[in-house]
Amino acid sequence: MPIKDGDFVLVNYVMRIKDQNKVIDTNIREEAEKAGIFDEKTRYEPLLVIIGEGILLKSLEEKLKGLEKGDEKEIELSPAEAFGTRDPNKIKVYSAKEFSMRGIIPRPGLEVEVGGRRGTVISVGGGRVIVDFNHPLAGKTLMYSVKILDILEDEERKIVELFHRWVGGIPKEEIEVTKEDSVLTLKLPETLFFIDRVGLLIRGFQRDISKYIPSIDTIRFIETITLKKKEKEKKEVSEELQPQQEQAAGHEDKE
Amino acid sequence: MPIKDGDFVLVNYVMRIKDQNKVIDTNIREEAEKAGIFDEKTRYEPLLVIIGEGILLKSLEEKLKGLEKGDEKEIELSPAEAFGTRDPNKIKVYSAKEFSMRGIIPRPGLEVEVGGRRGTVISVGGGRVIVDFNHPLAGKTLMYSVKILDILEDEERKIVELFHRWVGGIPKEEIEVTKEDSVLTLKLPETLFFIDRVGLLIRGFQRDISKYIPSIDTIRFIETITLKKKEKEKKEVSEELQPQQEQAAGHEDKE
Repeated sequence: MPIKDGDFVLVNYVMRIKDQNKVIDTNIREEAEKAGIFDEKTRYEPLLVIIGEGILLKSLEEKLKGLEKGDEKEIELSPAEAFGTRDPNKIKVYSAKEFSMRGIIPRPGLEVEVGGRRGTVISVGGGRVIVDFNHPLAGKTLMYSVKILDILEDEERKIVELFHRWVGGIPKEEIEVTKEDSVLTLKLPETLFFIDRVGLLIRGFQRDISKYIPSIDTIRFIETITLKKKEKEKKEVSEELQPQQEQAAGHEDKE
Repeated sequence: MPIKDGDFVLVNYVMRIKDQNKVIDTNIREEAEKAGIFDEKTRYEPLLVIIGEGILLKSLEEKLKGLEKGDEKEIELSPAEAFGTRDPNKIKVYSAKEFSMRGIIPRPGLEVEVGGRRGTVISVGGGRVIVDFNHPLAGKTLMYSVKILDILEDEERKIVELFHRWVGGIPKEEIEVTKEDSVLTLKLPETLFFIDRVGLLIRGFQRDISKYIPSIDTIRFIETITLKKKEKEKKEVSEELQPQQEQAAGHEDKE
């Protein structure tokens, strides 16, 4: 089935600037390493794209329509389709003083923020600083190499992918999804509780479910802890902790 | 049934220093306010005491044995039963320099830490600082006014109290406990996910369950989110967030 609007698609992509043939973004680890842009904090894995959502550039998502599972394609985006043309009016002149007062020593290439807008210093001299507020990719033609890894039909797989893109710390294979009528149940490992800001991430997931799987009106999360097995490792952590109420009591404190 | 070892008891208490008739600890809000020791961060509510555990002084827990629900009692603890007698060897002399080098200006009454031990400055003069490392309550006779609010027999109530003392942010009435054979199930509100360090708190609960309700070998947590009702409030929070993977993609960023 060719890709159409609203489809859940898993893609790999490599994004280059056409003129320079320079990779500036990718979700593939080896490509990132090769290009010298590997970042430890990034999860390199197939990217969930919901066609029309705008996780990738919308113009790019548009051009994925009609492709099928397994397809690979080179897609060219003109500046207008990508980050716009360069606008000379977005180049501004400031006095060097304005920066030194804020403790910034301007030099070409430095990213600065002025009035809430981010720009790049392009020249410094004679007490004047010239800042370019065009997007760094404005005026560039972009080349995307895209591979369609999968087009998800199965609702449970869609849900797993939605959960995973928010709560990435839980491996997909540890998420067990079932749906009965309008009740969605997710069985999750107890490690869920240790994820930073997990509440906010779950809110995001919740929003996506409301948006993309509107037949669901209740989400149940079930985490199961098996006590006997893990006794030892647990001990280390919890022995440092005391119940909160102990503070309020005159607890034993002899040294 | 009179209180015996291992019982789960809910108590109210007020602790005074006998000589001074000064309240220095209590779990009752009004008493704390009256005594001028009210602390916003403290939860003023019945305290769960498991006799022999040591949440209160063990000597005090010992003296609760035999009391019944509804009993009120004044209990006197000698220094030896409480924080020990004062030991003159725990009074030490330091040069004022040692403190000034650490940026501390010593004055009588100041709490200081020296070599990992906490003490109180009792005098300063002639370049010398005298520090008392005795527990502030050493040598004091303590008076506890204790009221036995309840003695828990029901296992589910015990479990609710154990959970609540760790995860105090969840009101007890929002915790639904069921037990089937060795499987304990706790139904909890979604606010659980927003509690700071919830993972560690749950580990503590887990430890208590292993210790006090050994018949349980599996704990299941179930949080239920109803989507339709709460749509509006959720929107505010989640619209600020974008899925984590978006960082990895060349997302729309035109200003």
